[in-house]
Amino acid sequence: MADCREVVIREIRKMLPRSGRYERILYRLILDYPLREAKGLRPTLAIATCRALGHSAVSVTPTAAVLELFHNAFLVHDDVEDESEMRRGAPALHQQHGVPIAVNVGDAMLCLALEPLLGNVEVVGLGPALLILQAIAEMTRRTVEGQSLELDWVKRGVWDLTDQDYVAMVVQKTGWYSFMTPVRVAAIVAGVDEARTAALVEFARVLSVAFQIQDDVLNLRGDVGEYGKEIGGDLWEGKRTLILLHMLRSATASERTEALAILALARPRQPDRRKAAGLALLAELARESLSSAGRAAVRRLETVLRGTAAGEKQVADVRRLFALIRKYDSLEYAAAVARSWAARSHQLFAGLCAWIPPSPHRDVIRSLVDFVHARQR
Amino acid sequence: MADCREVVIREIRKMLPRSGRYERILYRLILDYPLREAKGLRPTLAIATCRALGHSAVSVTPTAAVLELFHNAFLVHDDVEDESEMRRGAPALHQQHGVPIAVNVGDAMLCLALEPLLGNVEVVGLGPALLILQAIAEMTRRTVEGQSLELDWVKRGVWDLTDQDYVAMVVQKTGWYSFMTPVRVAAIVAGVDEARTAALVEFARVLSVAFQIQDDVLNLRGDVGEYGKEIGGDLWEGKRTLILLHMLRSATASERTEALAILALARPRQPDRRKAAGLALLAELARESLSSAGRAAVRRLETVLRGTAAGEKQVADVRRLFALIRKYDSLEYAAAVARSWAARSHQLFAGLCAWIPPSPHRDVIRSLVDFVHARQR
Repeated sequence: MADCREVVIREIRKMLPRSGRYERILYRLILDYPLREAKGLRPTLAIATCRALGHSAVSVTPTAAVLELFHNAFLVHDDVEDESEMRRGAPALHQQHGVPIAVNVGDAMLCLALEPLLGNVEVVGLGPALLILQAIAEMTRRTVEGQSLELDWVKRGVWDLTDQDYVAMVVQKTGWYSFMTPVRVAAIVAGVDEARTAALVEFARVLSVAFQIQDDVLNLRGDVGEYGKEIGGDLWEGKRTLILLHMLRSATASERTEALAILALARPRQPDRRKAAGLALLAELARESLSSAGRAAVRRLETVLRGTAAGEKQVADVRRLFALIRKYDSLEYAAAVARSWAARSHQLFAGLCAWIPPSPHRDVIRSLVDFVHARQR
Repeated sequence: MADCREVVIREIRKMLPRSGRYERILYRLILDYPLREAKGLRPTLAIATCRALGHSAVSVTPTAAVLELFHNAFLVHDDVEDESEMRRGAPALHQQHGVPIAVNVGDAMLCLALEPLLGNVEVVGLGPALLILQAIAEMTRRTVEGQSLELDWVKRGVWDLTDQDYVAMVVQKTGWYSFMTPVRVAAIVAGVDEARTAALVEFARVLSVAFQIQDDVLNLRGDVGEYGKEIGGDLWEGKRTLILLHMLRSATASERTEALAILALARPRQPDRRKAAGLALLAELARESLSSAGRAAVRRLETVLRGTAAGEKQVADVRRLFALIRKYDSLEYAAAVARSWAARSHQLFAGLCAWIPPSPHRDVIRSLVDFVHARQR
């Protein structure tokens, strides 16, 4: 995976025009996320599949780089949308450079993907190049559709969802661009027929669901150092997961009402300097000789300044959600569902091995399947 | 122009998949800005040029629709970046639906443009379709580069700019996608040779500069009803314009220092409910019998709550900028520069008329040139 990542980073650098002026202010920022420590899952899947199908990596490298660029574009915009603080061990791009620059950098990454895809005509020939463009067009449409579905659930406070709703959203939002399209473009480059392409894409779809449910489980169960994200981050965000859906449908009516009230609360914002200054001034005022009404006003003003008035989650709220999740073994439930998707992806992979000959590249794909299993322990 | 707009809206509707689920939550939002009252400058320019060059509108309509979609995508993201409140007489998309949904809707508009451009192969043939894809790829790259340049100036507080710096930024940020690419894709569809295409694009570039400088002048000079934007909006935003650049280089050293200090201040944010609640509580506290230190704390806390502590512009600040602009006739200077660009576009248009035969469509293009002249009075 490290090799693939290096090849792809080199390819992304090639995409970025070298005009001195913009190099400094735009293209350096475009490289920021791709250069941070990452697995490079999408390019690895595209390159390994292409090579396992008997073709050279060279013919799929520009497309793999485009997939990585899209992934990072979505991350930059997701971080803006979720008001995330960190990404891959460093402050999110909009935290470092502000929302305007981060939105534009994401746009630039989406827009710059077109030129290398057109350049593909020279790399793989006209027919495959057009098919890849179509595959990417469908992929981006599915991704923004999936994202809009999830954002709509968040906005309207929808929790009345089945596991199937969740799976459909996840396939749309991340399955298409992270798993299905990487193998699909590899199949196009390798000239694999329609039935086999469909089998590869179905394998990738099932694997993507196993991965995402695993991710959700690890988000709540993992250890910071191992997983790199804040524990319980998904609970603070109120992200729809099988874990929460299971807990909500297992809970008693009153627990459910309580949990939904907590989930309706916003994630707390970072304390800012203005807030700190306001609280210091308020502490001065609290030392004055105030009437009881005055003291009440100070207390309420403190609430306003701290931002709890706007309905933000407190640590105790998140602990309560954790307790309900534990009470109903919802983590174990989700882990079991992930295992069954992982087992299914194993079966589908075995089917693929009937016509994909053994090779180190096929083993790379198998290792991704095994990875989901290994993560469960 | 109204005709062109209608054709293009119909074409955009065709682009949007009709899956019930996403129709409601994504595709309706994508149509929001395009359906608001607008001139439809870009599709008009593309269609009028194509027809003036003797080709049917049909062959350029999908591309014209893509240009309109890109324009609206940039508007949605610009409004997020600038924290704009209104767009075309209604609240900006992120004000109605929140930043996350607005960022995703803009992304969706950028991503959905690829499918109709691929469909162009059937409309105009393979060669022209690929040339159009390349033209769009270059256009989007130039646009995000121009945007990044302006955002960088804002972020670093750069005012040490020449008129040429401004013109280069404007051509990159809006000239390419609003004027140059519409005529370029029309020329591709019509099969016009390279020299004539270059002449058309140069005419469009010059016209774009005239338009933008005019826009800046009208922003400060116009009447709300006529122009639809808040008067002096550019001054609140601290937007780089020829007007401010002229004023800054004409001013005395102390005026310049004063103006730069004002321009370094942020635009005031909208008062929010939390702020209003805080100020009401503070008014209660002010009625207590406080020491002089307590009264000072109340005053400073009020400043914190109102947000002026963070360095926001006040009405008096913007009035002072206006006064300096009037003192040095900077509006008149910028209007004169716009006139000279408009005159140059007139000359270039006369050159084009040597080989573009008279037609109602050629008259539409001429009317855009005349429009810049008419706006000046």
